[in-house]
Amino acid sequence: MTKEYFDLVETEGRDSYKLLSGLIVPRPIGWIGTKRRNGSFNLAPFSFFNVVSTSPATVLFSGSSHSDRPKDSVSLAEESGEFTVNIVSEDVAPAMSVTSGTFGPEDDEFEIAGLTPVPGKVVDAPMVAESPANLECRVTDVLNVGEGNTRIVIGRVVALHIDDSVLDGTRINSKQLRAVGRMSGNTYITTDQLFEMVRPPA
Amino acid sequence: MTKEYFDLVETEGRDSYKLLSGLIVPRPIGWIGTKRRNGSFNLAPFSFFNVVSTSPATVLFSGSSHSDRPKDSVSLAEESGEFTVNIVSEDVAPAMSVTSGTFGPEDDEFEIAGLTPVPGKVVDAPMVAESPANLECRVTDVLNVGEGNTRIVIGRVVALHIDDSVLDGTRINSKQLRAVGRMSGNTYITTDQLFEMVRPPA
Repeated sequence: MTKEYFDLVETEGRDSYKLLSGLIVPRPIGWIGTKRRNGSFNLAPFSFFNVVSTSPATVLFSGSSHSDRPKDSVSLAEESGEFTVNIVSEDVAPAMSVTSGTFGPEDDEFEIAGLTPVPGKVVDAPMVAESPANLECRVTDVLNVGEGNTRIVIGRVVALHIDDSVLDGTRINSKQLRAVGRMSGNTYITTDQLFEMVRPPA
Repeated sequence: MTKEYFDLVETEGRDSYKLLSGLIVPRPIGWIGTKRRNGSFNLAPFSFFNVVSTSPATVLFSGSSHSDRPKDSVSLAEESGEFTVNIVSEDVAPAMSVTSGTFGPEDDEFEIAGLTPVPGKVVDAPMVAESPANLECRVTDVLNVGEGNTRIVIGRVVALHIDDSVLDGTRINSKQLRAVGRMSGNTYITTDQLFEMVRPPA
């Protein structure tokens, strides 16, 4: 195998985006719900997203004002201190894709994508009724990356709502969940090509 | 759809782990290479990992001293200020699984898993020769989550090494890359079940 070398300190941002979003796959999708000061709802997908701790339960997502990804979610989560994460199953993937468009502050992405907003039980942010699971989160930290155009929003997960049909007790049945992952460009992935590898004994 | 409600402030950590690692899928795998002070190498996989910015190119991973995941990588990256991320293709997935075991500070996971360490070009940390791509990273921040048992390591990606055969110019050919993603438990996923959704025009 022959490897090409890329100096990312010198390389243009556009190449970094293509290379890193193509190499670091598959990425989970955090479909972030926030509420605007005027009471309207915002909803947008982020794949620079993951769980980072389960005790305390913590997730993060990152958005940039330079990217083609909406950053309203970042500033709204920061301002309000609250957001929801909605899990993207195959059923709601087309609606998720609609909400990845660029919209103005007066637009309601729930309405545009034909989705039903449900108020959080403990946080004042909208959840997607059609998603198989919803996380209610409180912002604990917001971190600037580099010059500050990109911000990482870190949130404590205070509550979960999970569809009965994807639960086996306190385990998630991934075949029922049918989560969708993000590859690069316009490409996504289903989660049905599973295989097992047994972890070596401790 | 009927949803069950989980209060994660009250719920035990073990349930949070099962629920969140099952819901937030598929996760990319950061196979983290670090160097110990005595010169020996450490290598361990993390799925609480993602790219968070591409300008500047930035990734993060998170590890906890309470989890069954090794946290040596976290402290070694923090101490040395450097780490590598090695991309896990189907070919190297069994070796990655071997390195997810629990090892002592005198063990060399490269040797145990039959892998070839290659020194970074700009950082003093080992890369996996057999991986289709390697990221060289410099630590920019380390963040405590909660009581501090879990730490998020944020790193600037300063260089990339990418196998010619997965490159189409500055795009990654995911069919050639054959990256493996993490589901919950002992379950992983291949990235060959792709589908396209066109993003709405801006």
